[in-house]
Amino acid sequence: MAKIQNKNDAITSRDVDFAQWYTDVCRKAELMDYSSVKGFIDYLPYGYAIWEQIQVQLDKRFKKNGVENVYLPMIIPTSLFNKEKEHIQGFAPETLVATLGGGETLSDPLIIRPTSEVLFCDLYKNLLSSYRDLPKMYNQWCSVVRWEKTTRPFLRGSEFLWQEGHCLFETEEEARGNALTMLEVYDEVGRDVLAIPFVKGRKTEHEKFAGAVATYTIEALMHDGKALQAGTTHYFGQGFAEAFGIRFLGRNNKLEVPHQTSWGVSTRLIGAVIMVHGDDNGLVLPPAVAPIQVVIVPIRQEAEGIMPTCNQIKEKLVEAGYRVKVDDSDRTPGWKFAQWEMKGVPLRIEIGPRDLQEGKLMITKRVNGEKISLSIDEVVDKVPEILEQIHQDMYAKAKDQLDHSVVDVENLEQLNAALEKGGYARMAFCGEEECELKIKEATKGGTARAIYSEEVPEGTLCPVCGKKATVIVYFAKAY
Amino acid sequence: MAKIQNKNDAITSRDVDFAQWYTDVCRKAELMDYSSVKGFIDYLPYGYAIWEQIQVQLDKRFKKNGVENVYLPMIIPTSLFNKEKEHIQGFAPETLVATLGGGETLSDPLIIRPTSEVLFCDLYKNLLSSYRDLPKMYNQWCSVVRWEKTTRPFLRGSEFLWQEGHCLFETEEEARGNALTMLEVYDEVGRDVLAIPFVKGRKTEHEKFAGAVATYTIEALMHDGKALQAGTTHYFGQGFAEAFGIRFLGRNNKLEVPHQTSWGVSTRLIGAVIMVHGDDNGLVLPPAVAPIQVVIVPIRQEAEGIMPTCNQIKEKLVEAGYRVKVDDSDRTPGWKFAQWEMKGVPLRIEIGPRDLQEGKLMITKRVNGEKISLSIDEVVDKVPEILEQIHQDMYAKAKDQLDHSVVDVENLEQLNAALEKGGYARMAFCGEEECELKIKEATKGGTARAIYSEEVPEGTLCPVCGKKATVIVYFAKAY
Repeated sequence: MAKIQNKNDAITSRDVDFAQWYTDVCRKAELMDYSSVKGFIDYLPYGYAIWEQIQVQLDKRFKKNGVENVYLPMIIPTSLFNKEKEHIQGFAPETLVATLGGGETLSDPLIIRPTSEVLFCDLYKNLLSSYRDLPKMYNQWCSVVRWEKTTRPFLRGSEFLWQEGHCLFETEEEARGNALTMLEVYDEVGRDVLAIPFVKGRKTEHEKFAGAVATYTIEALMHDGKALQAGTTHYFGQGFAEAFGIRFLGRNNKLEVPHQTSWGVSTRLIGAVIMVHGDDNGLVLPPAVAPIQVVIVPIRQEAEGIMPTCNQIKEKLVEAGYRVKVDDSDRTPGWKFAQWEMKGVPLRIEIGPRDLQEGKLMITKRVNGEKISLSIDEVVDKVPEILEQIHQDMYAKAKDQLDHSVVDVENLEQLNAALEKGGYARMAFCGEEECELKIKEATKGGTARAIYSEEVPEGTLCPVCGKKATVIVYFAKAY
Repeated sequence: MAKIQNKNDAITSRDVDFAQWYTDVCRKAELMDYSSVKGFIDYLPYGYAIWEQIQVQLDKRFKKNGVENVYLPMIIPTSLFNKEKEHIQGFAPETLVATLGGGETLSDPLIIRPTSEVLFCDLYKNLLSSYRDLPKMYNQWCSVVRWEKTTRPFLRGSEFLWQEGHCLFETEEEARGNALTMLEVYDEVGRDVLAIPFVKGRKTEHEKFAGAVATYTIEALMHDGKALQAGTTHYFGQGFAEAFGIRFLGRNNKLEVPHQTSWGVSTRLIGAVIMVHGDDNGLVLPPAVAPIQVVIVPIRQEAEGIMPTCNQIKEKLVEAGYRVKVDDSDRTPGWKFAQWEMKGVPLRIEIGPRDLQEGKLMITKRVNGEKISLSIDEVVDKVPEILEQIHQDMYAKAKDQLDHSVVDVENLEQLNAALEKGGYARMAFCGEEECELKIKEATKGGTARAIYSEEVPEGTLCPVCGKKATVIVYFAKAY
């Protein structure tokens, strides 16, 4: 790695203060800025461009699965919001509410959407008439507002960007299948796009979404040993549909109630990318979502032939579909190296006068600093496989960390010790909310992240209440 | 055109009741639905897909011009909003205001963004230090809220989707240039994407944007003879920057105030597409933004070879980058014809058993009902040029209507008569707000849409006040 020699040198080491390191990276890599309202952030071009790449990757997979995009209002009348009880209880404490419109007091105050289940129900109620109209698989890309007390860029904010899919099906089987299919889509985007492996499974009763019958989750492991919930899918049963009066004429010519799902991921994925892959030199971006995949740094750019060669390589790579930048600013090469390492550009190409004479150039991989000398003629052909290899290496490294973090424990003492160390601990328990709360207390915040298995070896007892254990669960401290 | 023989037959004729025709098309083509809050609409898949295509076309042109995408909060603190006086006066009456957050009364109520000038200023204030940081050209895709009393789908709503570009420049010349460049981008998207010609020019003092030094506009002509403002760009001078304390260290090493622009288009463009191109059978979509560009309707789909042939043609066209649907539903061909005409699909392909035997198929253009018999082998090669021809025909037709609508008038009587008939009337006047308001009154709502020329033949007087005329203006009744 290049020696840090610029404004970037103020970055805190990950192992000294991970939270400060995270904030430093968010700011120094110019991903975001704090807005003048506490808890709300400005997504700057470099941060937003990562989100655009994530959107493209998700959106094409949604469409392949038959999902259609829509856009529903950003506000929900309080009267409508109050129709599903568990749901209200889950979100009411963190709502932002508009009470004035056009200078007049609103008789039915408007909640800025924290999520849009009720709006989709209100729409589907009108759209649905027969089983022929099913399935309905709608998704929207938007922002939602949740009035949070403690916020951190990308991880928890009063407003964040996300997608929310809301689907209706004729049968329970199809709906449950959809919740699992979309979980697979998220898992695939983690593996093939973000180079992030997940622990995945159903949430416990205590951790499931307000109003859901079942919630499924993907959970990533951050460098500091904490878990990050990166996406969830929900099977709602017929609860919302009942509450909102959604009916369709079934195959048997009788009115039936559809089965519902929802699923979402958010700009939290940017936080996951930062905390899984980043290092003490800054961001490390997976090639598939890097706004700049290859940066070309000329050495002695005033020397004859250097800039034309840089620009030719760029043009050829852009033609081949890559995102490439030639840094021809008046900074020193060392400053540029540090700058683009901070910004996590996967691949750096350097070309100096001697290289040019020899028809060569130097490539450096951001993920491990590995250098490769290539002939100028072959670089355009080689870049695709090098980027692919970088992706594989990033995934393998993260997978290795995740796998090695998992330990099996049998009681609260062991669990506590494991969670102190960081990572995931698997433990069987009865699955009751009461015991789960006791586990959280005993471990100072350890929570059930996902159910690993619902098949428990015979005779296993809950270490809290001593009753029969019914589930083996991944516990962790989490963001 | 196929005989309307399905649910679509309820569509009102354009010339009987244009407003009702518009609403019918919006609903029957399944572009939108009304939400449960007055003035807010649900964008359904078919309507939203048109917006997605418009976004792609605009976004790539923005990026080519060096614009970067960002995302800023959806809320503006009242205290911040109040910093630019003219701006407040323009928007204050139609704001939606949140006063409760997390169950508590907010000390500084939050305005749901009606536009984001002040947020961009607040951000730029922190980002800008030297002239080297300029220009800054940021854009965001989002929705905005304006508490409107009278609303119509896509044309005027309490919430709409749009893009808003906000840029800072070192000099007035660059900033004015940017306002005109972006106007050209909009004009190009009209011509090359939406097949919509515009009248364009600077807005009069009375019609310009709150807080702007100069506003430029593109105005389309609807089938009913009314104008529709389809997009605007603004040169702000240094007013906002002064109010928000934005400074940079100039080349002369002194603190300077940057020059600012903003520019935006919205889902109103969907309304323009409907009202410029639509006919009594429904939507007519320009190929570049049609969610389905080619629909293939099998005749006697159970007959041998029909479906495989339809699917083969589809696959080849999809491979070539087109958006294609095979309608293999159990409806009759006649129903399908009417359905896809309602939805404005530019090109229909029919294949029946006799066609298949002869190795032929029939193509029908939505825009004019023209039929072309093609051999099955050549269809994939021919579709691109046929779609291009459709685009050209649609543009030529709209351009012809626009050009023929324009008349030159010299006094209020003539103006009134011209605006009664519909279309644009060009008239010279003094340019003062007072006279403009009198013109509006005398013509029962005729407004200055855009300045045609600032060069007025010597001796021309304002028909209202009798003083020297300074501008020739396009007047029209407008949406």
